[in-house]
Amino acid sequence: MAKIVECVPNFSEGRDKEKIARIVSVFAKHEKVKLINYEADQDYNRTVCTLIGDAESMIDAVMDLVAICVKEIDLNKHTGEHARMGAVDVIPFIPVSDISMKECVSIANILAEKIADTFNIPCYMYAEAANEEKRISLPNIRKGEFEGMKEKIKLPEWKPDYGDSEIHPTFGVIGIGARDFLIAYNIDILTTDEKKTGNFAKAIRQSSGGFQYVQAGPVYLENRGHTQVTMNILNFKKNPIYRIFETVKMEARRYHMEVPSAEIVGLIPKDALIRSLKYYYDVEGTDFPEDMTFSEIVKMSEKHLKLRDFSVDKIIDYFL
Amino acid sequence: MAKIVECVPNFSEGRDKEKIARIVSVFAKHEKVKLINYEADQDYNRTVCTLIGDAESMIDAVMDLVAICVKEIDLNKHTGEHARMGAVDVIPFIPVSDISMKECVSIANILAEKIADTFNIPCYMYAEAANEEKRISLPNIRKGEFEGMKEKIKLPEWKPDYGDSEIHPTFGVIGIGARDFLIAYNIDILTTDEKKTGNFAKAIRQSSGGFQYVQAGPVYLENRGHTQVTMNILNFKKNPIYRIFETVKMEARRYHMEVPSAEIVGLIPKDALIRSLKYYYDVEGTDFPEDMTFSEIVKMSEKHLKLRDFSVDKIIDYFL
Repeated sequence: MAKIVECVPNFSEGRDKEKIARIVSVFAKHEKVKLINYEADQDYNRTVCTLIGDAESMIDAVMDLVAICVKEIDLNKHTGEHARMGAVDVIPFIPVSDISMKECVSIANILAEKIADTFNIPCYMYAEAANEEKRISLPNIRKGEFEGMKEKIKLPEWKPDYGDSEIHPTFGVIGIGARDFLIAYNIDILTTDEKKTGNFAKAIRQSSGGFQYVQAGPVYLENRGHTQVTMNILNFKKNPIYRIFETVKMEARRYHMEVPSAEIVGLIPKDALIRSLKYYYDVEGTDFPEDMTFSEIVKMSEKHLKLRDFSVDKIIDYFL
Repeated sequence: MAKIVECVPNFSEGRDKEKIARIVSVFAKHEKVKLINYEADQDYNRTVCTLIGDAESMIDAVMDLVAICVKEIDLNKHTGEHARMGAVDVIPFIPVSDISMKECVSIANILAEKIADTFNIPCYMYAEAANEEKRISLPNIRKGEFEGMKEKIKLPEWKPDYGDSEIHPTFGVIGIGARDFLIAYNIDILTTDEKKTGNFAKAIRQSSGGFQYVQAGPVYLENRGHTQVTMNILNFKKNPIYRIFETVKMEARRYHMEVPSAEIVGLIPKDALIRSLKYYYDVEGTDFPEDMTFSEIVKMSEKHLKLRDFSVDKIIDYFL
């Protein structure tokens, strides 16, 4: 099976629709890379692209993105609410299937070296790809932005990981990194009692002693007339959905509250569903079918994880 | 109700039984303080005392301990495997009932000031009572031990929190702190498969993504012929026993393994049991009896938490 990554490059143009269309058009010729969507924000003056595809092809596709942004964007003329240090500001790689974080770090480094060599654009490695503690945080690297980087890059401690200690005069510099996939996951609680739903959130979220890679809080849904535990799962391998779902159900039992359903906001990797579905097959004592179709995965996710409003086009691998 | 603390002073004599008996005898006259046990280690040449009692009386009792150790112990003549910097080396306060961590920090400070004033012994505040980041860790403070402290204490960054920058010539210095109660808790898994039991440990321990205040690992018990998930719970309020027990049972369901029993090693605060028993009463929909006797608590802990080899004298409050 192909090594599949997600890549979410952000470029510094969010207002000129024709220019944005020209920029994102570069992805079309890359057969093994799919642009799932792109969102332009006018206030930010920035566009976020969501790409998935074959790891090697992704490098070529992003090289084309950088090439066109060198031509189309001059940061000396750019204003917007979002902090930025490059015409392509940030390029994170996220493992999706059959690929490790280590391999994503390696891909990030290959790309950074290629960009520095080809375009003379300095690159900083961040998040899992960071080579120093203080470069883990992107905002830390980006502090000072395009304008401030001109001097900052000359400081020995801010020597770029690739390229010379001199920003590209119109493009600036890029942050290139690797990080885990983030799943936006919400569990419905059939109550209007936000305080009790808050207790469930406290039981599972890292900040109050819960699971390490879960951020959670209570929210009341006006339209639906009940509350939710709303979550980000920062590492679905270490904090699988089934464990979070079952723990919330366990807590809800003491209040005799129903937990009828849950939802995924945005995309979820197939692997995250498979890992959790396997738990329920194990509990039932049935063999897990290795060749499930996407629609079967959806059906089983509805059955066991009680996912509502779920469909194949929420599964990232479906687009491949 | 009285504010009850646990205090676990360690003093630097673990070989001379008569001397140890003389030292621990100072606690007898303090009616509101109970010496639950003391363990002398010959190799360490160190004795650990477990005291519980009224917070104010505890200060007086520990003052008496320091007074007798000034007379009985000369660290210039002390050897042993355990690192030490004082004749009484470390004095941690642990909240047990009706007392907050903040109050324990305050008690630790009152004691430290009294010791410095009365005996001219410098004191360092550590753990929750630390006044600086690098003094949170006791080993960090103690580095260099009695011998090295003579010079270390003169460095501006190692100025003691109380007392002069000069060690007591025979006693040394003391680390005084406040920390949470630690519960040693083991869950029996009816299998010999240490790997699978290791998976349960991974699901719940902080270091692999689990609950924030749980340390856990698998262990095989030769005598009993099965494995255990063996744990330390560093904060039973944020990571209550019932939640850990139910999560391990949830994980065990996928392997169709029985989780017949669990055990507490050492002591457990009544509050930790009550918090967890309440969960099961809530699930059953029965009111929680506010005036449970210690033997009823034991009975209910056996029923709901499946504690084996459990008895009233494992409940710290029973000794009050």
